[in-house]
Amino acid sequence: MQTPWTERFAQRTQRMRSSAVRELLKLTEQPDIISFAGGLPAPDVFPVDQFQDSTCRLLKEHGTKALQYGTTEGYRPLREMIARHSSRYGIVIEPENVLITSGSQQALDLIGKVFINPGDHVVVERPTYLGALQAWNAYQAEYINVRMDEDGMVPEDLDAALRKGPKFIYALPNFQNPSGVTLSLARRHELIRLADHYGAPIIEDDPYGQLRYEGDHLPSLVAIDAQARATDGAPYTGNIIYLSTFSKILAPGLRLAWIVAPAEVILKLVQAKQGADLHTSTFSQMLAHDVARGGFLDQHAKVIRATYGARRDAMLKALETHFPPEVTWTRPQGGLFLWATFPEYIDAADLLQAAVKEKVAFVPGTSFFADGTGRNTARLNFSYCNEKTIEEGIYRLSVAVKRFIAAKGPAAVA
Amino acid sequence: MQTPWTERFAQRTQRMRSSAVRELLKLTEQPDIISFAGGLPAPDVFPVDQFQDSTCRLLKEHGTKALQYGTTEGYRPLREMIARHSSRYGIVIEPENVLITSGSQQALDLIGKVFINPGDHVVVERPTYLGALQAWNAYQAEYINVRMDEDGMVPEDLDAALRKGPKFIYALPNFQNPSGVTLSLARRHELIRLADHYGAPIIEDDPYGQLRYEGDHLPSLVAIDAQARATDGAPYTGNIIYLSTFSKILAPGLRLAWIVAPAEVILKLVQAKQGADLHTSTFSQMLAHDVARGGFLDQHAKVIRATYGARRDAMLKALETHFPPEVTWTRPQGGLFLWATFPEYIDAADLLQAAVKEKVAFVPGTSFFADGTGRNTARLNFSYCNEKTIEEGIYRLSVAVKRFIAAKGPAAVA
Repeated sequence: MQTPWTERFAQRTQRMRSSAVRELLKLTEQPDIISFAGGLPAPDVFPVDQFQDSTCRLLKEHGTKALQYGTTEGYRPLREMIARHSSRYGIVIEPENVLITSGSQQALDLIGKVFINPGDHVVVERPTYLGALQAWNAYQAEYINVRMDEDGMVPEDLDAALRKGPKFIYALPNFQNPSGVTLSLARRHELIRLADHYGAPIIEDDPYGQLRYEGDHLPSLVAIDAQARATDGAPYTGNIIYLSTFSKILAPGLRLAWIVAPAEVILKLVQAKQGADLHTSTFSQMLAHDVARGGFLDQHAKVIRATYGARRDAMLKALETHFPPEVTWTRPQGGLFLWATFPEYIDAADLLQAAVKEKVAFVPGTSFFADGTGRNTARLNFSYCNEKTIEEGIYRLSVAVKRFIAAKGPAAVA
Repeated sequence: MQTPWTERFAQRTQRMRSSAVRELLKLTEQPDIISFAGGLPAPDVFPVDQFQDSTCRLLKEHGTKALQYGTTEGYRPLREMIARHSSRYGIVIEPENVLITSGSQQALDLIGKVFINPGDHVVVERPTYLGALQAWNAYQAEYINVRMDEDGMVPEDLDAALRKGPKFIYALPNFQNPSGVTLSLARRHELIRLADHYGAPIIEDDPYGQLRYEGDHLPSLVAIDAQARATDGAPYTGNIIYLSTFSKILAPGLRLAWIVAPAEVILKLVQAKQGADLHTSTFSQMLAHDVARGGFLDQHAKVIRATYGARRDAMLKALETHFPPEVTWTRPQGGLFLWATFPEYIDAADLLQAAVKEKVAFVPGTSFFADGTGRNTARLNFSYCNEKTIEEGIYRLSVAVKRFIAAKGPAAVA
């Protein structure tokens, strides 16, 4: 007598669905499709030669250590490197404030495990990063959505959201995935003030901080918070948990990211990580440390910025050239994505089907809305394809868009 | 106003404690301590040269692919390799039945996420693997403990446990961690029969299956179950979820393991893994595939068996020579651990403190009991130290043990 598996799955899994983005990635792997759907870094900027040098040295000099179990907290020299790097921005960070994670997705999962009881409320931007919703749906989080404009979360909405007593606020201040929007400096201060006032911590997710193509660097929330607290050289004990990753500045295939937080939060996250995967690959950590030391990442970030900046420009130019006036889009100062808004009568999921026939793909925006709205929006990635391909892809997409407007727009209806 | 972090942590984290084993590993990292505490493979059997060859080839031929994002299910050629390997044992396994995980610890975590609602019961061996308890405590599992004798779980206890309607049974049939006990063939059939009768699936955790030093190979539960169902060449759809790992036969630092299960279970686990860490390191997966293909693992397992078998023999011999008759221990036919039972008046945690003064360490057994018993037991690892060090370490431990017996035993009391 075998009970059907479906009757055995836990309640929490009812809200776990396969990621639309992941499924799309499969669909759009056909070589003749130009895909703006993924969030992939360009493979042409992976520093393969540096990896080759480092793996050879690493296996020769520390082979048995690189292949052995390690501590849950992470490889100490890598944590020290991250602590030193963070200190550049005026925060006092010790290795005890740093946890290495298996990609930022794991950081989001561990945060869910440590903070979310079923039914707890979490404040998110509208739209927000799909991966965070996926991670926290498994812990049965409920979401409070805060509207965004071109300067990020709207303070009045945020104030109203915080009155509901959320467990934390999730914010992506730089070149947000999916919208490309950057939180202005004034709004950063306001966010920190409101979070303090209502006693809600902030999860600051910053995968793209190094990838700014124009305008001035804005300080991270954790840096602003640390400076305001001025703790005379003591390590950070404030209100913010900061996430970043090697995926965009080095290589995503290593699955390597980190959390910066007060030491007591790191301790709790370490306990959660022990049960989740014991520790992150020793080999990946030692490899990233070897590639990154000696200032290579600063050099390499320049190459990435030049490459992606040109691609962003190419996409913006192609949109200007080919897209009809009924469509609007954001002009991100950095990151990997821009965000298109179609007339309300266009459902981006239908548009995607038509686009795939034109051999081009994107991600319909509704997956990024915790409240299921945003059906007329889309996320477009500009980091993966080169300029020529971007121009061609946007042209193809414009063909599908114009056909939809002709068929469903006011002219058609009239 | 900053709320203390401790007031923000979720209820589930109250049962998450830092692993005693992990904390001990830190304590016993001092170079002059002989440690039987960890579960570390011997670094002298890591195939460093093969890794060197493979990384060079991999980065030269497929560098950008190895550094890029991959699919959640895992690197397809590695899944195919595992499917082929499993088919050796008479099970029909397709790549769709295989999920690559970031170590077996992640497999345990994903199983907890997919199957355990707060308060659900799980049947475990007594003692059982500490890492499983850690993973499932976070999902607020309750445990039903089943006694073990020298042939594994006692059927009468198992029958009584299954009447309580557990979510699943967790079993480590080969050279169990921590006890070293192997489930006999008759008991394997009985376990499968009882699990079927009560409609409870079995999680079969098999990290050491290839590491048998004497006696005949026993078929895995999943192989027995598959053969009994005889499905005319259709992929496995039975009652068992099988876990294994590259940590013991290749290298633990890669954090690479796998799950074999019915395809619908794999699908649900894939959804859970998307939210947990997106996917396991592409680089680690392609590297393991390159090292393992062409039959290297079969060759390499022979080297490991010869090395660990000799170390097991050395530990058994040293125990015979030095330990007093009041102490008993298991004689595992494989794996990494044996299990010592002291007189009831000895608390192994106290003994550990005395042992560390003698410069030797082990893991007190109580961490492996979901019911908190087993205070007079200990787990001893024999894979990490060479024979000479094992002899010296067991001698040192015997000094501490004899002192305890003299101070606390019947003679002292009388």
